[in-house]
Amino acid sequence: MTLETAFGAVLRELRLRRGLSQEKLGFECGYHRTYISLLERGVHSPTINTVFILARVLRTTPSAIIKKVESKAPTVERR
Amino acid sequence: MTLETAFGAVLRELRLRRGLSQEKLGFECGYHRTYISLLERGVHSPTINTVFILARVLRTTPSAIIKKVESKAPTVERR
Repeated sequence: MTLETAFGAVLRELRLRRGLSQEKLGFECGYHRTYISLLERGVHSPTINTVFILARVLRTTPSAIIKKVESKAPTVERR
Repeated sequence: MTLETAFGAVLRELRLRRGLSQEKLGFECGYHRTYISLLERGVHSPTINTVFILARVLRTTPSAIIKKVESKAPTVERR
């Protein structure tokens, strides 16, 4: 599992836990639905700014999101 | 303080705590020294992939870095 895939899975879990559609989450964040979809599918690596915005809408903290990602993808490839 | 500025300050603190130059940190991460400089000056918002790579070289966890950023920049502007 890549880091992006792990992030996408965490995002999807948190979104569903809040009972939000991709469209609703996107709207609340100021993003288009398709951007949420790209993130959930692990196509795009989010910036920390995006993580902070998502965390606020999902009523969690950015560090809590990243901690969940760590548990799914403990290592990352060196560039 | 913007989120990017907060991240830059945290990165600089962690780098200096490890006694690393920007050049050395960049080398260990596979980044150019000037990219580290851009991050530390808050010019660039890193992706989570970058945070994971930096955390490994700085011998901390990505979530610990993000937690420090939260304490410096508790809110973030909606896009």
